[in-house]
Amino acid sequence: MKVLFVAGDPKPERWTVPIKELLPEAEVHVWDANGPAVDADYAIVWQPPAELFERETRLKAVFNLGAGIDGLLAVPNLPPHLPMVRLEDAGMSVQMAEYVLHQLVEASRGMETYREQQQQGVWKIHRPIKRSEWPVGVMGLGHIGKRVARTLADLDYRVHGWARSEHTLDKVTTYAGADKLPDFLGSTRVLVNTLPLTEETRDILNHQLFSQLMPGAVVINVGRGEHLVEDDLLKAIDDGHVARASLDVFRQEPLPAEHPFWQRPEITITPHISARTLRDATLEQITGKIRAHHNGQPITGIVDTSRGY
Amino acid sequence: MKVLFVAGDPKPERWTVPIKELLPEAEVHVWDANGPAVDADYAIVWQPPAELFERETRLKAVFNLGAGIDGLLAVPNLPPHLPMVRLEDAGMSVQMAEYVLHQLVEASRGMETYREQQQQGVWKIHRPIKRSEWPVGVMGLGHIGKRVARTLADLDYRVHGWARSEHTLDKVTTYAGADKLPDFLGSTRVLVNTLPLTEETRDILNHQLFSQLMPGAVVINVGRGEHLVEDDLLKAIDDGHVARASLDVFRQEPLPAEHPFWQRPEITITPHISARTLRDATLEQITGKIRAHHNGQPITGIVDTSRGY
Repeated sequence: MKVLFVAGDPKPERWTVPIKELLPEAEVHVWDANGPAVDADYAIVWQPPAELFERETRLKAVFNLGAGIDGLLAVPNLPPHLPMVRLEDAGMSVQMAEYVLHQLVEASRGMETYREQQQQGVWKIHRPIKRSEWPVGVMGLGHIGKRVARTLADLDYRVHGWARSEHTLDKVTTYAGADKLPDFLGSTRVLVNTLPLTEETRDILNHQLFSQLMPGAVVINVGRGEHLVEDDLLKAIDDGHVARASLDVFRQEPLPAEHPFWQRPEITITPHISARTLRDATLEQITGKIRAHHNGQPITGIVDTSRGY
Repeated sequence: MKVLFVAGDPKPERWTVPIKELLPEAEVHVWDANGPAVDADYAIVWQPPAELFERETRLKAVFNLGAGIDGLLAVPNLPPHLPMVRLEDAGMSVQMAEYVLHQLVEASRGMETYREQQQQGVWKIHRPIKRSEWPVGVMGLGHIGKRVARTLADLDYRVHGWARSEHTLDKVTTYAGADKLPDFLGSTRVLVNTLPLTEETRDILNHQLFSQLMPGAVVINVGRGEHLVEDDLLKAIDDGHVARASLDVFRQEPLPAEHPFWQRPEITITPHISARTLRDATLEQITGKIRAHHNGQPITGIVDTSRGY
C-alpha cells in the first residue's frame, strides 16, 4: 500500500515519521510538485494542488487534514467518485468550545474592562451578569456546533441552534432551514458561526442577518472567513447594533496588515487558532481509517460532495 | 415574623422591597446602628457588626448573603447555638466555573499573546495546546469546587481534586487530607483554590505549597485573600516556578493602590467578581428557607461552626 502526503508543511517528516510508525505496512511518499507519479493508493492532504489528481490516478480515497472540506472541494476537476474523507473531531471540537466560551465570557463578564482597570490600578465592581441577557445562537449543528452548544448550555447559558436540517440536542432549542432563520436570529444576542462553507452559506453573515440579531449583539466566527461580509460587519459595529466580534477566520489569511479589522477595539482577532489540528490524534484517526479501508471495512467521515460537507 | 436586613448596602431597599414581595407575611426592618432592638426572628446578613447579637436576642436563625461564612464567624461572641445558614449556590458555582475556565484558557492558550499581536498587527500562530500539559488541581470540593472540576473535566482537561475529607467525582481523581496534599500538588500545574477560610486553611497558599507544584504553574485563587501568603506568591513568580496567577480575592479589599500586585504582568487582578451574588436567586432561596424554618420544616445549609464552614 502506498500513501502520499500532500500538504505545504516545510517539514513533512513531522507527519511522515509518525505515519510510518502508525502504518508500518505502508510505503510513505511526500508530494513533489516536479516528481513522477508514485501510484499512491491513499493521499493525506491539505489544500492539495489540482495536479495531484491528474498525476495520481489510482487513488482509492483522499483524507483531509481538517474538518472543513472546502479547500479540497475547491480543486478543479476532482474525480467524481473518489471518496473524500474529512477529519472527524480529533480533539478539535473541545478546543472550539473552550475558545467560544472564552470569547463569550470576555463579552458577557466585561473581562476587558477589568484588564483596563488593573492597568490603571482601579478596583471597581460592575453589575453582575444575568445569563438571561446573553442568549446564544449557534449556527451549524455538526460535531463542532453541537459541542459548542452543549458546553454553553452546561454553563446555564440559554442556547439555541440553527442548521439546514433537523437536529435534537438536550437543553438546546433547535431551528431548521431558511424559514426558521429569522426566529433563530431574533432570539440571539451572541451569534456563533460553526457552519461549513458551501455555496449556500457563503456570505451568510451579512447586513440582513446582523440586523435581525438582538441589540448589543456579539458575533463569534469560527467557521470560515468567506461566511462573513466584512464591510457589513464594520457597518453593523458603526451602527452600534453589533457591539463586539471575535473573529478567528478571514477571507484572506494571514489577515493583510492594512486590513481595517486590526485596529478596531470592538473586534478580537486570532490567527485561525480556535481549533488546531493535533498531529497525534489526527494521524491516529487517518491511519486507522486507511488500514480499515484497505481491509475492506467501512469508514466514517466520507463527504457528501453534492451537499458540500 | 420580623426579618432584619443587616448589610452595608447604601440602598437597602434594593433588598428589602423584594424580601417583602417574596415574604409578605414578614415585617421587614433595616439595621440601624443607633436604633433600638426590633426583636427580629431572622436576620439576613453580610459581615454584621457584633452589636447585632447583643441587641437582637430573640433571633432564631441568621442567613448569610454568601457561601463563605468566615466574615460571619469572625464576629466575636456569636451566640453558640444560633443556627447560621450559608447561601447555597444561588447561581454562584456556575459563575465561578466559567471564571476559572476563562483564566485557564488565558494561560493554556496564550490569549494575552494574541491580544498583543493584534495591537501590533501581527499574524502568528503558536504551538497548539496539549491538554496533557495542563493538569488542573482543584483545592476544596464543596459545591463550588465540584462544579469547577466538572466543567474543566468536561472540556477534557485532566482534573484532580483535594479536600479535607473524601469525595467522589466522575472523571476526577480525588485526594483527601494533609497526607495526600504532596501527591496532589506534584501532579498539579494549574492550581485552583476554592477552599473555605478556616484556621486550618489560612495561609495555605504559601512558599512550601508553591514549590511542590509542577513547573510553569498557574495559581487561580477564587477562595479568600487570607488563603494566600502574598509575598510567597511574588517570590515564586520571581523564581519562575509560578508563571501566572489570577487573583479575585485579596487580604485587603479593595486592593490598596500601592499594592505590588497591580503592576505585575504575571498577575491578573479582578475585584472579587468571580462569582457575584445574584439578588433574585439569593432572596428566593433565603426567604424560602425563612418560611420553612418558621413553619418548623428542616432547612439545608446550616453551618457546622466547629468545622468552620
